[in-house]
Amino acid sequence: MARNDLAALLLTTEPEIRYFTGFLTRFWESPTRPWFLIVPTSGAPVAVIPSIGVDLMARCGVADIRSWTSPDLTDDGISLLTETLQELAPGGRIGVPSGHETHVRMPMADYQRLASSTHLTDDKGILRSLRMVKSEAEIALIRQACHIAARAFARVPEIARAGVALDQVFRDFQRLCLEEGADWVSYLAGASNQGGYADVISPATLRPLAQGDVLMLDTGLVHQGYFCDFDRNFAVGVPSPEVPDAHAKLIEATQAGFAAARPGATAADLFHAMNAICTGDAAVSDAGRLGHGLGMQLTEWPSLIPTDHTELTEGMVLTLEPGVSLPGGKLMVHEENIVIRAGGAEWLSPPSGPDILVLEG
Amino acid sequence: MARNDLAALLLTTEPEIRYFTGFLTRFWESPTRPWFLIVPTSGAPVAVIPSIGVDLMARCGVADIRSWTSPDLTDDGISLLTETLQELAPGGRIGVPSGHETHVRMPMADYQRLASSTHLTDDKGILRSLRMVKSEAEIALIRQACHIAARAFARVPEIARAGVALDQVFRDFQRLCLEEGADWVSYLAGASNQGGYADVISPATLRPLAQGDVLMLDTGLVHQGYFCDFDRNFAVGVPSPEVPDAHAKLIEATQAGFAAARPGATAADLFHAMNAICTGDAAVSDAGRLGHGLGMQLTEWPSLIPTDHTELTEGMVLTLEPGVSLPGGKLMVHEENIVIRAGGAEWLSPPSGPDILVLEG
Repeated sequence: MARNDLAALLLTTEPEIRYFTGFLTRFWESPTRPWFLIVPTSGAPVAVIPSIGVDLMARCGVADIRSWTSPDLTDDGISLLTETLQELAPGGRIGVPSGHETHVRMPMADYQRLASSTHLTDDKGILRSLRMVKSEAEIALIRQACHIAARAFARVPEIARAGVALDQVFRDFQRLCLEEGADWVSYLAGASNQGGYADVISPATLRPLAQGDVLMLDTGLVHQGYFCDFDRNFAVGVPSPEVPDAHAKLIEATQAGFAAARPGATAADLFHAMNAICTGDAAVSDAGRLGHGLGMQLTEWPSLIPTDHTELTEGMVLTLEPGVSLPGGKLMVHEENIVIRAGGAEWLSPPSGPDILVLEG
Repeated sequence: MARNDLAALLLTTEPEIRYFTGFLTRFWESPTRPWFLIVPTSGAPVAVIPSIGVDLMARCGVADIRSWTSPDLTDDGISLLTETLQELAPGGRIGVPSGHETHVRMPMADYQRLASSTHLTDDKGILRSLRMVKSEAEIALIRQACHIAARAFARVPEIARAGVALDQVFRDFQRLCLEEGADWVSYLAGASNQGGYADVISPATLRPLAQGDVLMLDTGLVHQGYFCDFDRNFAVGVPSPEVPDAHAKLIEATQAGFAAARPGATAADLFHAMNAICTGDAAVSDAGRLGHGLGMQLTEWPSLIPTDHTELTEGMVLTLEPGVSLPGGKLMVHEENIVIRAGGAEWLSPPSGPDILVLEG
């Protein structure tokens, strides 16, 4: 911060504030109240938050908490925040995360009001750099999240077979994640269709699974505030011949990404290692990337794309997520989670073998 | 929009974009990619979105979709968005929701870049006004979400009794919500402690329920993109004498809010109707409000606070959420969901009676 001439950081989003305080609550689901954390160049962080959160923030060990009764329709914490910034960082530049993958979680009118009386600037990527490298405690939580999901995936044959509607499979899979120990299930995507699927972001349809379908489930469940993010593919009955081949190719690509993942390699290197197998390194898919960072959020920096030259270092947690095309405009994707160690990568999700799992047709 | 001299609206968040398009996906969980919708003064909305979302957006009936391969580290859709705005609203003022409960979901650096070449201003509360009044189709979905939660609450005796840890109750309650038909469970808060609880936003602890506890569970589950948001209190075994009295007072306050809820009354009127019973209208709690709007988000405009003079109209969906203090710094809260009709309010959640539900001690 001092090197970048920043007197303080101003943080407004859930992962940014949790990173420095451990403040973990699902209350962020409500957009009503803004929450602020100030990290001065020296001294402990100071929370400027709605009074409803004071008890929990104090239990997180934050000693200096300034609060107001929110919502306040004329001044929802902005005067208090301005005063606190002027006290902690008088006349100084205040770094606000402003780059890719960030947003400022407060009303734009309030941000502009704040900017008129303080010197707001970007944070020079400090938050990104800090959060990208995980501690052993963080890695252990992500591993536990992965193992919970792996146990739920192993039970998919209990809930999915020909005739069961996809929306029921989605509900039941989330139930399995909870039964296996997830605190909550923030993300579930997936699809099912003949010989592959068309898209990986749509909500579940009412269509029943049918013989010849490929079912994909991709979950980001949460364990003590940390995510996993990986998927599994299943053949419903006997798949068309392209499907087992595509699955084997996805596993081969994932293994190539794993082999390339070591300190000194770049995010782009991992992209090329996997894309060489998926497409002969010819094309970039609509998904735009073949993996990403993982941690307090479902997706974090970096992106496995040709233009991301972020150098991998020990402690980075990544997803490897290759995709292949199938006839008829279909596709299949596979995803695993890894951590970068001194000697190479280590699996956090128990990796899939080359054979696609088969469900009752 | 014309009255406010706006040539277009620019929308960046999940509920704002879904409101105009029906674009429903859990993919918003990833912070990586920005999504934009432009609503011009005349003509249909235009989506400017990452290519990964084009298929789903097209199936939503949006005819004009401009896309780019995201993430793009040098230009993540900003040139495309700028060009599209200049084409659809040349030289015109672009309204961006900027007031309370809003935020702009894109990197601040990109927003500032966009602002340097277009005339961005606030949306004059247009989105808030539109979203505050629900259609019959929206009301039906919220009612269904409420009934799913009500069925789950009725099954709490299956999962909660003295000796069961609170975190296990949280997991099992989410499982019950899914079994009863929730698409997913975006929000679960709650607490359990002797003779009331200290706070309503903390995550579940490992502490087992004990004889004399009050257990509160408050859920915002999602059904086809619409939330419920209400809670239930349970006594574990025989409660201290203050607890049944507090519960009866909460129900009385809720009923007073219900009786006051009709077209022409204000959000503040409902606050005072409930607070008169809870505190003799003496105090405002740390929660800051006694209810709020509800719909595509867990909490929406207005707030039931003394300073919110929003006039209630037919079709508004609200929560009534009184709270009372108990000895030892404890509190209890109760919450129900209603819709404003011509002749008064209608329950969407099946309302609780005055007697607190009792679990096995």
